[in-house]
Amino acid sequence: MRTKVAIIGAGPAGLLLGQLLNSHGIDNVILERQSPDYVLGRIRAGLLEEGTVALLDEVGCGARAHREGLVHGGIELAFGGHRHRIDMKAATGKTVMIYGQTEVTLDLMNARKAAGLTTVYEAADVSPHDFDTDHPRVSYVKDGVACEIACDFIAGCDGFHGISRASVKPSAIKTFERVYPFGWLGILSETPPVSPELIYTNHERGFSLCTMRSMRRSRYYLQCSLDDHIDQWPDERFWEELKRRLDPEAVDHLVTGPSIEKSIAPLRSFVAEPMRFGRMFLAGDAAHIVPPTGAKGLNLAASDVHYLSGALREFYDEKSSAGIDGYSQRALARVWKAVRFSWWMTSMLHKFPDQGEFGARLQLTELDYLVGSKAAATSLAENYVGLPY
Amino acid sequence: MRTKVAIIGAGPAGLLLGQLLNSHGIDNVILERQSPDYVLGRIRAGLLEEGTVALLDEVGCGARAHREGLVHGGIELAFGGHRHRIDMKAATGKTVMIYGQTEVTLDLMNARKAAGLTTVYEAADVSPHDFDTDHPRVSYVKDGVACEIACDFIAGCDGFHGISRASVKPSAIKTFERVYPFGWLGILSETPPVSPELIYTNHERGFSLCTMRSMRRSRYYLQCSLDDHIDQWPDERFWEELKRRLDPEAVDHLVTGPSIEKSIAPLRSFVAEPMRFGRMFLAGDAAHIVPPTGAKGLNLAASDVHYLSGALREFYDEKSSAGIDGYSQRALARVWKAVRFSWWMTSMLHKFPDQGEFGARLQLTELDYLVGSKAAATSLAENYVGLPY
Repeated sequence: MRTKVAIIGAGPAGLLLGQLLNSHGIDNVILERQSPDYVLGRIRAGLLEEGTVALLDEVGCGARAHREGLVHGGIELAFGGHRHRIDMKAATGKTVMIYGQTEVTLDLMNARKAAGLTTVYEAADVSPHDFDTDHPRVSYVKDGVACEIACDFIAGCDGFHGISRASVKPSAIKTFERVYPFGWLGILSETPPVSPELIYTNHERGFSLCTMRSMRRSRYYLQCSLDDHIDQWPDERFWEELKRRLDPEAVDHLVTGPSIEKSIAPLRSFVAEPMRFGRMFLAGDAAHIVPPTGAKGLNLAASDVHYLSGALREFYDEKSSAGIDGYSQRALARVWKAVRFSWWMTSMLHKFPDQGEFGARLQLTELDYLVGSKAAATSLAENYVGLPY
Repeated sequence: MRTKVAIIGAGPAGLLLGQLLNSHGIDNVILERQSPDYVLGRIRAGLLEEGTVALLDEVGCGARAHREGLVHGGIELAFGGHRHRIDMKAATGKTVMIYGQTEVTLDLMNARKAAGLTTVYEAADVSPHDFDTDHPRVSYVKDGVACEIACDFIAGCDGFHGISRASVKPSAIKTFERVYPFGWLGILSETPPVSPELIYTNHERGFSLCTMRSMRRSRYYLQCSLDDHIDQWPDERFWEELKRRLDPEAVDHLVTGPSIEKSIAPLRSFVAEPMRFGRMFLAGDAAHIVPPTGAKGLNLAASDVHYLSGALREFYDEKSSAGIDGYSQRALARVWKAVRFSWWMTSMLHKFPDQGEFGARLQLTELDYLVGSKAAATSLAENYVGLPY
């Protein structure tokens, strides 16, 4: 098999890249280790920047998001028992959309199928080769048969644990990392959200976040210990602890119910540089991870593939390699800003084991300043809605 | 001796408080452990917010500052070999004034002398008593003779190491503290400043600051190890190290010369709560310390005594204790914002032993964001010029 761009990974980054390339007539094949159902079963974030929605629109995949997504013009920051709204729409003219990553993936999968593009699911032992030459290829095993795709370029969209970044020789890559000393315990429940917008709470017992997938399905998170196991958190304990951390009004409005998903995730900041190795490019989680506090993971994957698809179009249409030569730098500039924002939100809102009383008071002072200063609130808002591409 | 307000400490906080009280007809006496020359010999900061200048004007002590002070409408942030100006005037409509703390102290001392107010210098063993009763008093020893002042109120303006805060029983006071793992090595030299405005530099070798006292006298600082001694830093080494940290243009313009003062200071954030204990009030460094990165120390002392003089005037003129009852909370609200700002500037600009490559990159990303975002630059500027009283 031969294609122009072999994409490793059929998550939102790979699927969106495939559609963007296809819309410019650039032939591509996606290889995915898992089955479609497995991919769709992964519960992930669900907050889209306007730029991300615009990319879905660009490839004709935005209709359901516009129909079913919830448009939010603000968020609430809660501390000291009170909530304070950051009016992002007023500050920036922009909004964000609540629309599950799973839904984005499904819409992109359906579009890909409709366009008749090749996706090889359950491809085992996927491996990129020769990307430091002009003739890269990707090998894999499908139904026990060894296969290979010859291509012009490889796009590694296979996440943090994927083979793409792992195939680069260590001396060619520089990584930056911070692991946070706590996790997020999350549940999904078929209950109406406690409030129409997200509530981020700094509490002496730890951070909490009230978010949602729809007006009938809520998502709640609690900062927890990395040593915790979900068996220690029966639903009842979760709701009790959430109530302890929420402001009184939120407690009054909270509707509880059985969890339909429950998990504990660690928090990590990670960046690999560069994002291009010869004829292989990394995009999304394959190159960088942010803690979920700023809801940036999916949106960064979208901006990466925006830059990458533009660069590849330039290569094929204009016979110029300027775009692919500049990809890493352009993508990383935006990545680092989002990494900083996610680190800052995480630092301001969580309880850190070593923060001491001084650190705790600094957090409250920063929050108090933030909700009272137009400039500071605008700074938060412009990052939250997404810095321009 | 009897007075309405016994002020402990003849630094700028005590002297300004004395003049503010006097301008409202409130009798006061200042007790100072040192001689006037000793007080004037202490080299301290020299950047005044407009609010601080306005207080000097209010007590008729601003004329020389307006004549000799340098008005700055911006600062420069340097990183990655380039300088970026934050236009504070454009962002906030406000400026800051370069005018040495020593000059402020001298102007206030002269005004106090001219007004014929009592200042007892070289008062030994100063000690506040009975401030939890309606009849506080301050004892001291002058020229070997034990003396006492009976008063209505005591104002502790005697700095971080002073007796006022130390006289409060530990259970009545809560302190917050962070000690930074580095110091500032500073020199004063009779050379023109390298640039008309301040340059704050984040450099891989450590922070540096180019500031000034006048257009003929420069003040430069280098982040140094807490283990360093000034004998390890002959002038030549200082200038060489400064040049390594500056951007090329600054290196070209730097005029070096013999130091006329050289010292190493530790950096500390400290807040004591509350700032009122019965009939004793703390103001300035007696209650809080900030690292010098944000130039807030003197300005916080000024806002404290602004609040305190207003509260005492209310007590005497309107027979209301609302002002003195609210002093601590009002003062601390502004103090904590400045403590946060000073901590943030310190955190963003210095090299920390445990920051790692991720932390270093976060700093550069934050600086890059800051100089490129109007909202973020305005947030820095509004804090730097001083939040409103």
